[in-house]
Amino acid sequence: MEQLFASAIAAIAPADTSLEAAGQAHLDDLTKPKGSLGRLEEIALRLYCIQRGVRPLAADPARIYTIAGDHGVTAEGVSLFPQEVTRQMVLNFLNDGAGINILANTVGADLMVVDAGSCGGEFPEHPKLIQRKVAQGTDNFVNGPAMSRENCLKALLLGIELADIAAAEGYRTVATGEMGISNTTPATALYSAYLGIDPADITGAGSGLDARGIVHKTKIIVRALQANKAAIQTKDPVNVLAALGGYEIAALAGLILGAAKNEQAVLVDGFISTAAYTAAAAICPHVQDYAFFSHASAEQGHRKILSALGIKPMHDLGLRLGEGTGAALTLFLLRAACNIFNDMATFSAAGVAKGDVVI
Amino acid sequence: MEQLFASAIAAIAPADTSLEAAGQAHLDDLTKPKGSLGRLEEIALRLYCIQRGVRPLAADPARIYTIAGDHGVTAEGVSLFPQEVTRQMVLNFLNDGAGINILANTVGADLMVVDAGSCGGEFPEHPKLIQRKVAQGTDNFVNGPAMSRENCLKALLLGIELADIAAAEGYRTVATGEMGISNTTPATALYSAYLGIDPADITGAGSGLDARGIVHKTKIIVRALQANKAAIQTKDPVNVLAALGGYEIAALAGLILGAAKNEQAVLVDGFISTAAYTAAAAICPHVQDYAFFSHASAEQGHRKILSALGIKPMHDLGLRLGEGTGAALTLFLLRAACNIFNDMATFSAAGVAKGDVVI
Repeated sequence: MEQLFASAIAAIAPADTSLEAAGQAHLDDLTKPKGSLGRLEEIALRLYCIQRGVRPLAADPARIYTIAGDHGVTAEGVSLFPQEVTRQMVLNFLNDGAGINILANTVGADLMVVDAGSCGGEFPEHPKLIQRKVAQGTDNFVNGPAMSRENCLKALLLGIELADIAAAEGYRTVATGEMGISNTTPATALYSAYLGIDPADITGAGSGLDARGIVHKTKIIVRALQANKAAIQTKDPVNVLAALGGYEIAALAGLILGAAKNEQAVLVDGFISTAAYTAAAAICPHVQDYAFFSHASAEQGHRKILSALGIKPMHDLGLRLGEGTGAALTLFLLRAACNIFNDMATFSAAGVAKGDVVI
Repeated sequence: MEQLFASAIAAIAPADTSLEAAGQAHLDDLTKPKGSLGRLEEIALRLYCIQRGVRPLAADPARIYTIAGDHGVTAEGVSLFPQEVTRQMVLNFLNDGAGINILANTVGADLMVVDAGSCGGEFPEHPKLIQRKVAQGTDNFVNGPAMSRENCLKALLLGIELADIAAAEGYRTVATGEMGISNTTPATALYSAYLGIDPADITGAGSGLDARGIVHKTKIIVRALQANKAAIQTKDPVNVLAALGGYEIAALAGLILGAAKNEQAVLVDGFISTAAYTAAAAICPHVQDYAFFSHASAEQGHRKILSALGIKPMHDLGLRLGEGTGAALTLFLLRAACNIFNDMATFSAAGVAKGDVVI
């Protein structure tokens, strides 16, 4: 398993930035003042390098993987919602009732739900559901590692496999989504460990804790970092992920790594997904070439983390739902950027005079 | 004409904010932590009040009006592009080659192009084109009013008529777009006059002026404000618009007023459209209930103006193209908000446990 994982990582190449000049020249020849479509042009240029200069650019078809997992640390009272809600929400996803269903439908993305490690038994079979439970939730990480390294690798490989399935089916973009009661707690611990940020600076309300609840959650995270000091000190990113992460987070990190390997664009959703990205980038920095960041979450701390990572996300809409909802909204911008690049008229073809002719 | 205009304005009612509690209760019953869809929830709630509590909420069908006009002040060398580009771009719109064509198609909005006052002759007839030239461009406003009050009212009434046409055809949302070489110059003058902002603080590069060009443009705006002091001092918002605006800007102000009268949502695009909004709000403050602000333009000054108006726009993507491009992108968020409100499952229907149950 170690070897399978290592060979997948070794297969990740950076995007071809030598194509930037050609892509930019095309953008500058379109009937608009230079650079006037701002970040849409930036997205188009990045996709041009990711897709190796092959035209037309394509963001579609796109698939959102919403991956579920439970967390032993829920026993410490770090969420307003009971653990059963993870399972209830998976059923809600399958019944088309959740936020991500609505937004995936609105944007025209395919949605697949993945059980990577929720508590409870198997789910009834469903065409939208991939059941690959690595375990019945993580262990409570205040007492030691959340996952064994072996189980963490299983979840990482599951994520890579999900990217491979999407690539084989022709998906050009994959998007990250998650569901897991309490998962802002492991996500915050991961940021602290990977980025060296004090948990007190980035611990937030999650699904709605009050100030007292946030203080309690911060203490739990500090305890977890203490209990897993040895794993963190190995500086091996997989060990850190195993100690502090979760099955859905590890699978999302694998999805991001797999997308990069397959030269797919990957839309990273919010607070939890960015933690998965942070793990993936620690494992292989080339993932940064393939990742598009959807939004600045309302979860306090996300903005600080994005800034620490040097990332300016596309949206700032006060979202803090997860599930992939921010990624679904942002797919629309990737599609718009592709269409601009592919379909706008050039100055010469449209008979429009170029700028910089002061009359 | 004065009377026709006055009676249209008198017909504008505020949105029904007494419905907020019922709309919020519905949003809070959907399967997500309270408020976790951030600004999508805010949009849905506002649309619920605009649409008088009638369900389902609808942002579609939506129509973008991209309105063209020329500006006498172009003779002062305030733009990198020659005046002919206004006409060339209208033809580009009709040939589906411009940024707004691509983004209107991407989001699935109808696009109508309106000639409210461009220079040059009539255009060939086209199903997408409404030819209602009030004049061959404005007069150079460094020498006096850009438009007579009568011509300004004609353009305002044209905009109201465009909203009425869209309402009669069942459009639930109208969006503002414009094309007019040099039109950041009158827009900046309007902001200065309506909001009391020093032109030096908000004059920007437009389609790409350098620092020297911006200094020159600022001087021209100061001269125009001086030349039109008498009109500004009447404090009559129509006089100010006539003195400093343009035909496309006045028509857009009318479109915004007309949309409010018709209880339609109106998506305000960028720097120029916000100037039209500022004029409309000076004429009738109720328009604020119906307006949704698309994006913070890369045109320096727009951010200051939005902040002076107390507006937090939806997007911040470095756009500075105009045409309605930012509004087209933002229509997607209005649609998403409606779908969330209409289609998400409630806690009881989905069998999901509500939050605030700490286990």
